[in-house]
This record gives sequence, structure tokens and C-alpha cells, in this order.
Amino acid sequence: MPIDADLIPASGRAPAGVRVVEVGPRDGLQDETGSITIEAKVAFIERLAEAGLPTIEVGSFVRPDLVPQMADTEEVLRRLRPRDGITYMALVPNRRGLERALAGGVRAIAVLTAASDAFTRANTGMTVDESLRKCRDLIDHARRSDLLVRGYLSTAWWCPYDGPVDPRGVRRVARELLDMGCQEISLADTVGAATPNEVRRLLEMLLAEIPADRLGVHFHDTRGTALANVLASLELGITTIDASAGGLGGCPFAPGALGNLATEDLLYMLHGMGIVTGVDLDLVRSSSALLETALGRRLPSRYLQAGPPRRG
Amino acid sequence: MPIDADLIPASGRAPAGVRVVEVGPRDGLQDETGSITIEAKVAFIERLAEAGLPTIEVGSFVRPDLVPQMADTEEVLRRLRPRDGITYMALVPNRRGLERALAGGVRAIAVLTAASDAFTRANTGMTVDESLRKCRDLIDHARRSDLLVRGYLSTAWWCPYDGPVDPRGVRRVARELLDMGCQEISLADTVGAATPNEVRRLLEMLLAEIPADRLGVHFHDTRGTALANVLASLELGITTIDASAGGLGGCPFAPGALGNLATEDLLYMLHGMGIVTGVDLDLVRSSSALLETALGRRLPSRYLQAGPPRRG
Repeated sequence: MPIDADLIPASGRAPAGVRVVEVGPRDGLQDETGSITIEAKVAFIERLAEAGLPTIEVGSFVRPDLVPQMADTEEVLRRLRPRDGITYMALVPNRRGLERALAGGVRAIAVLTAASDAFTRANTGMTVDESLRKCRDLIDHARRSDLLVRGYLSTAWWCPYDGPVDPRGVRRVARELLDMGCQEISLADTVGAATPNEVRRLLEMLLAEIPADRLGVHFHDTRGTALANVLASLELGITTIDASAGGLGGCPFAPGALGNLATEDLLYMLHGMGIVTGVDLDLVRSSSALLETALGRRLPSRYLQAGPPRRG
Repeated sequence: MPIDADLIPASGRAPAGVRVVEVGPRDGLQDETGSITIEAKVAFIERLAEAGLPTIEVGSFVRPDLVPQMADTEEVLRRLRPRDGITYMALVPNRRGLERALAGGVRAIAVLTAASDAFTRANTGMTVDESLRKCRDLIDHARRSDLLVRGYLSTAWWCPYDGPVDPRGVRRVARELLDMGCQEISLADTVGAATPNEVRRLLEMLLAEIPADRLGVHFHDTRGTALANVLASLELGITTIDASAGGLGGCPFAPGALGNLATEDLLYMLHGMGIVTGVDLDLVRSSSALLETALGRRLPSRYLQAGPPRRG
């Protein structure tokens, strides 16, 4: 039925295109208790790249004894075929990690902080301010090597220990991260507790002083609200959205934080809305299917399980 | 942290209150292959009523040999304690069913049609027009007995056989149902394929001539878009939203139509947005937990599994 041409309604508004940042190989796989071979991991990432995901977070340079699933990040990077237009990014927690990242030829790193002292204390033993000082040092060094730097701002809406987070505190951390030289900040709903009005309130406050192309959103689908929060973000002009293939993962340090937003579910909604991503949804789905085989279990993405609706 | 007071952002808009129509005991349980005792079913519905859900679809008067899970609807109604402000509704497919509903003392019924000939043919052997004639006859009789009548308009966005559905066809069916005397129409995304712009486009077309309080929306979360579609509907002023406790059920006649929107996930989002429903989310969650015990399996609602975020 030829009704796709007038897909855009009068109400709502949304950007024409969105950049989807794939975090599954890092934020997803870091929580896996099952083992996965490096061959399976590389095949998974190669398929995601083939699907056209422009930024893929492939691993992290954390202590192998703390996060054994990420111990092979150097080797993963070595095996990945470089592709034009695809950025492989790695999370870097400290100077030692940055050295490993540089040695591995990484061109984009991510650093991690949060808006809640209770959260940074529980995870790193630092206050937010101490965490920011560490970020500044890292970013200084990374920028000298011309690395792109993304700043994850965890607990941007809710803290697993303290509950709702004051948006003014989030704004302060966001300002500092940009001031340090982050190209982009990803606002993370670490425990998957935010609802659309909370999302709007924070974004309105930030967008009053930060261009939309410097801000991304990172929602967890713990309570089912991730895509509604994406919709609220789109309406405010956000064009960078994180997701995890298959809905893999969560946050090992945040109680109850299961379920990253699934890349498939995000792409299905965006494409249904006529928003261009440049990503092949079928190939993402087949990436997740590869990983399901490797892990020996089903992944929670609803689209992955349901598949496309019949088009007649 | 005292930030709830200014929850409402400048962007987006939403009604102050929403009426949640609980369809789990009918639309959910009709698909159950496991057996459930009438005691468990009644306890489930009583708990939902206690939670304050203002309209509960408790069963259907269909042929017991076709839908054995609904064979006990008379007995369920007999056992339910009447409560002020709570409407127990039953689905009625034909005159025989209507007689049973009237004998059972039901005050509200639902009738079922669709916007797609392929769908009505597959389920009932009728075209949409034939189905509408049957509805007209049923509604005529029901209105003579002063019953409230809700009209389900299935395949309002997608048909499991024909793909995308032309909104003009949906408008025609909606007009006819209202003209026949339906107090309310529930627009159903039967296969869970709609995305927010499709939702907006249809609602904009309908709301140009139908008051918002005559229209409800009924989303399936098959591909994860249900709550985003709810958000788009709220922004257009829709105040009646169907949901199923625990995310129970789907549609037995629609391939791939698993997963009603979960009542818990809906309430979590609405309450987080400051929208009043009059429903106690904890009690709905405990209703679903009762049912999980009775069915011996987990239900898919994300909030049901995750629980409330810690508030500090």
C-alpha cells in the first residue's frame, strides 16, 4: 500500500538522520558471565561494522582481573579490519589504559564519570570531583595524541543509591567534560529509571547552552521506557543515540540495571519514522544471532525475536 | 532530592490524567496454553480491581470449544464482587454471546472488527463490511439493554497479512462504529508493528473529527515500540490506554503478535511523567505475581521483573 510517502505527521518533530553508537561489544559483553571466544567476538563486531554502524565501542582497557571479558581488547582491535567511515572506540579508565589504547592504535576513546557521588564512590572510591580530575588528566593526554574523546555521564537521571539526580548537577559535570575537550557527552540512564518528562527537563536545560550534536543519550530498557525516552530526545533534536545489539548487557555496578536499549528495537522505530541511520537492520539482527549462538542463549531485543512485520 | 515538583518540562504535552483499560484477563489469558483455575483467575481480577483499574475486561462470551480459556466467563462474573467505580467488561462476538453476557449481568461489552479485509476474513470468514453489519446488529441489541459498548478496531496500523493499513480505511470503520452507538473505539496495533509517526498520522486524521475521549489506543510491544507509541498518543491528547497486567498475551489469530503492552510498564511511565491514573502500581505488580504463580512462569513486563528504582 503506497502510504509510506506521507509518513511524516504534523505533530511531533524529529531529526532527519540519527547516528547510532553501538555499545554492545563493550557495555553489553562486559557483563557476560559465559565465556565467548575472541573469534566469535571479532565476527560479531565485523558484522556490526558491515551493517554500517558508524561508531562501535569494541572493548575497554580496564584491569583484566576486574573485568576478564575485556582482557582481549588489544587482540580484538588487532584483528578488526579497518573500514572507511567506521570508528572503533574503546573505554579507558586510567593512564595505564590510555597507554594500552594508544599502543593498540585506537583513534577514539571514552572516559567515564557520573553525576552522583554515591555512584562514583561505590564504583571507583572517588567523589565526582575526584573522578573529573582524573578525566581531565586522561583527556589532556588523549588530546595530545589527537584522539577523539567521548565522555560518559552516568546516573544522568537516577542513581542506584541516591534516587533521582538533580539536573543542575548533571549540567555542571557536562560543562566540565566539554571544557576538558570531550567532543561528545553520552548522558546515561544507568539504572533504566528515567521517564520522558525527566528526559525532556534535563535535555532542555543542557540544550540551552550545549549544541545538540555534542550530546548523546544512552538509555537502559530496565523498565521498558527506553524507546519512549528516545522519542522525547528526538523531539528535542538529539541525533546521537547509544544502543546495544540484541539488548545485550547492563551495568555490573548498578543494582537492577539490566537491559541496554536494543539496537534492533531502536533501528526499527527510527526507520519506521522515516529517520535515516545508514544502518542495515537485517545485518544487525544477524550480528545478534551470531552472538546468541556463541553465548548459547536468547538475547532480549524484541525485534530480534519477532522479526519484521509482514509487508503484504 | 526535592525535584519532583517541577517534573513537567516545557516541551511535549500530555493530559493530566489517563484511564488505563486492563485487558489481561481477556486479551492476555485467552492465549494461555497452560490451565488456570477459576479461583486463580478471580483472585487475579479482584487484585486488579483493588489496584483501582477502572475498566477490566474480564473475559469473553466466545465458543468454549474455540477458546477454552474463556469458557468460565459467566462463572468468573458471578464470583466477582461488584465495586463502585470499577466496570467489568466482556467481549461479545455474536448474538448468542450477547445473550450470555446479558444473562450474566454484564453492563459493558466489547465488539470486535478490523480495518483489513484479509484479517477479518482469516479470523471470521467475513469482509470488514460484513463484520460491521454484524457489529451493528449486536450494538443495536446491546444499546436497547443500555449496555456500554466498546469497539475494538483491529489492524488499525498494520495487518499481519497485508502489511501497512491505509488510515483512511481506519477512519471509515471508526466513523461507522461511532455511528452505530459505540461509546468508545480502541485502535489496536494487532501485530505490534506501528511506530510513532504512523500513530500520529492516524490519530491526527481521526482527532480532526472525533473527540479524544471517544478514542483509546491498544498497543502490542512485539517490537518494543508500545510505550513510544503511547507517548506519541499522549502528546495528541489521548487519555484511554489499554494494557495487560504482566504483559500477558497477544493475539491468537495474528502471526507474531506476542506481547501486549504491560500495565506495569505503562503505569511506571505515566506516573513518572506526573500523569494521574488512580491505579496502585504495586498492587498491579502483585496481581501479576499471583498470576505468575498460577501459570508457573515469568511474565514479560520489564517493570514487573525489575521493580521500582531505589529512591535514595
